[in-house]
Amino acid sequence: MQITENGTTLAEQCEHLARLAKIASRAMSMVYRAPKDAWLHKTASRLLERTPDLLRANAEDMRAAEANDIRGAMLDRLRLTEKRIADMAEGLRQVAALPDPVGEVREGSYRPNGLEIRKLSVPLGVILFIYEARPNVTLDAAALCVKSGNAVILRGGKEAIHSNALLYEILTETLAASGLPANVVRMVATTDREAVGHLLRLPQYIDLAIPRGGSSLIERVVRDARMPVLKHYMGNCHIYVDRAADLEMAERIVVNAKCQRPAVCNAVESLLIHEEVAARFLPRLGDTLGRLGVEIRGCARTRELTASAVSATEADYAAEYGDLIVSIKVVPDLDSAVDHIHRYGSQHTEAIVTGDIHAADRFVRSVDSSAVMVNASTRFNDGFELGLGAEIGISTDKFHARGPCGLRELTTTKYVVRGEGHIRE
Amino acid sequence: MQITENGTTLAEQCEHLARLAKIASRAMSMVYRAPKDAWLHKTASRLLERTPDLLRANAEDMRAAEANDIRGAMLDRLRLTEKRIADMAEGLRQVAALPDPVGEVREGSYRPNGLEIRKLSVPLGVILFIYEARPNVTLDAAALCVKSGNAVILRGGKEAIHSNALLYEILTETLAASGLPANVVRMVATTDREAVGHLLRLPQYIDLAIPRGGSSLIERVVRDARMPVLKHYMGNCHIYVDRAADLEMAERIVVNAKCQRPAVCNAVESLLIHEEVAARFLPRLGDTLGRLGVEIRGCARTRELTASAVSATEADYAAEYGDLIVSIKVVPDLDSAVDHIHRYGSQHTEAIVTGDIHAADRFVRSVDSSAVMVNASTRFNDGFELGLGAEIGISTDKFHARGPCGLRELTTTKYVVRGEGHIRE
Repeated sequence: MQITENGTTLAEQCEHLARLAKIASRAMSMVYRAPKDAWLHKTASRLLERTPDLLRANAEDMRAAEANDIRGAMLDRLRLTEKRIADMAEGLRQVAALPDPVGEVREGSYRPNGLEIRKLSVPLGVILFIYEARPNVTLDAAALCVKSGNAVILRGGKEAIHSNALLYEILTETLAASGLPANVVRMVATTDREAVGHLLRLPQYIDLAIPRGGSSLIERVVRDARMPVLKHYMGNCHIYVDRAADLEMAERIVVNAKCQRPAVCNAVESLLIHEEVAARFLPRLGDTLGRLGVEIRGCARTRELTASAVSATEADYAAEYGDLIVSIKVVPDLDSAVDHIHRYGSQHTEAIVTGDIHAADRFVRSVDSSAVMVNASTRFNDGFELGLGAEIGISTDKFHARGPCGLRELTTTKYVVRGEGHIRE
Repeated sequence: MQITENGTTLAEQCEHLARLAKIASRAMSMVYRAPKDAWLHKTASRLLERTPDLLRANAEDMRAAEANDIRGAMLDRLRLTEKRIADMAEGLRQVAALPDPVGEVREGSYRPNGLEIRKLSVPLGVILFIYEARPNVTLDAAALCVKSGNAVILRGGKEAIHSNALLYEILTETLAASGLPANVVRMVATTDREAVGHLLRLPQYIDLAIPRGGSSLIERVVRDARMPVLKHYMGNCHIYVDRAADLEMAERIVVNAKCQRPAVCNAVESLLIHEEVAARFLPRLGDTLGRLGVEIRGCARTRELTASAVSATEADYAAEYGDLIVSIKVVPDLDSAVDHIHRYGSQHTEAIVTGDIHAADRFVRSVDSSAVMVNASTRFNDGFELGLGAEIGISTDKFHARGPCGLRELTTTKYVVRGEGHIRE
């Protein structure tokens, strides 16, 4: 048992923090839209005003990261610039502009006996948000959780500790002036990994855990959490090029889905090509992908038709490369493509390219993924692109929320039943 | 490791069963409403035809139960009669009459770039349903799971083994003739408790576990399941009698909520009485409840006003009696009542009796429960009463489904996105 400076254990500190957040979340049930939006706008203004301080705090984090040999993309994710801070402020204002997801009547009716039934959207309560280096996530998560009427406990990575401490100050200094409860945004003060373990064991205070980061973080949260977890796993996404595909369209979609941002979860990792179009499609596609620096790992037929392809293993079909690599398999028909997807896929995003309406409908019905695209890039499985306005992650589960999660997915419902002295007979 | 008759281990048998169910659930994605309803009607007919066989099988279960000293309510729950079998058949026909929850367009839009977005309801996949003695639950669960497009694995209690074996035969003998996949309804052949443990570790095949029974069963499933669990806990439900309550109405509602069916989860367990009406309300209520055989455990003020009341402990305020016992506390105001509910309640169902619209609104907003009743009995938190048509249980969680769960709560969603070669810029 660890004893902290002021004589309490870390477990006690975590419980205290979570209890304060629960009390704040109860108070949020009486808070309407205006104070939430006022806080988002005030926070955006303070963020811009404090840009010089934030750049200084971030510079400390950058120095520490370089001293710890963090390089390349990881280092870039940590960096704040004047432009990035302005974008973060704009993001807050965009969340303010979104409709309030609380208080929607999702269903409503009168019963034959005159009871009035309303199924209302209400906040989940307290959300524990656990994330890694990128400091802009601190603001995004706080904005979405509070706009949806929840209290949030933020737990960022140690690499961004100075940036996050200042962002936390900015997030909380205008809460009271906006009319929001004091503890509706909290940050875990220590970077001790054990703190997360303690918090994950408090389902009486914390209603939902959202991990965002590498798979080891997500697996740890799933294993230890006693409350529900909203997961944002990577994806092994597929594009099936049907025999009735427009092959120029197919090439354009494949190139976009593979090359536009290869590291993200909705980039394509595997192509399934109908054997009737393979001889016309693959040599051309192979040249294009080769020019773009994409490595191809294919089945025997793919290698016959694509000069540069190397042999694909079972592991390749299951892989999420997150890089300029793609696996390709030639299949005899649509059903074989669907079977392959069910065997190797991650139920994230799959696409069909076809001009045949029957093929499109069969693919849409058969494939069991969070999003199925017809003649569109897998890259469109994204909260902004699907019209949610903002997203806190993409759920690859089927429970509660599936696909991009926006404000609505951070709410639950409550039945409100009004009678005039009704009793059951 | 146990080796079964045909040389495979129990774990292998469970995995085989679950894999067959997953294959059946994939085939269900191509099945429309008509075959599902045809199967429900055929099953209802076969059930009536086989009433004599079913009564014989049930008599075997009853004999074994009596030999094992099962008595009273437990024994009655196990019993089938001609009337109960006819009611079960009628229940199947009612599920057939409900709308198909699959294929609903829950949201839809065109994006500015012309992409067509549809958020469709789709089945969850494979549901593992684990339940105790009542044999009618076998039919209810199978009907609701299949009507919502899922495959179901049934695991009943050993007390009903002969009844359930015949019900399983009736459920499955008309699947093929109705056009449904063969393995869409499966029953676990063994009553070995380890089988449940094996099945709960197969999230790759089973999408949801639903336990229905005593709290030890539910706790075990929650602890061991690697897939989501839809829980149906008992409830510690409250009625708050406001100072502006119609006291005759309040008495009628309290009596209904406590006495109509005291063992169910939406029966009231605790009353909170505003101090301004306590002196007028409690003596009268005490007499009425006394006549009805209800034991009262109250605070000091309650005991002053109610001749028969004994002293309530902290444990009483937290208790779910499931019996003709009620705890009563006099409170100074509405906010104290809400604090008490947040402290001791189970987030199941709470009611306010009041003529004051402001009090009603404040109570509805503040109380964090699956259903909040205004001037109506807590007993209305029920799938049939709220208009869901049928229910598989009442969720006291906030994730995925909250309150009564009907057909809709056994579905998830899938985004279907149609473009004309759309790529992301």
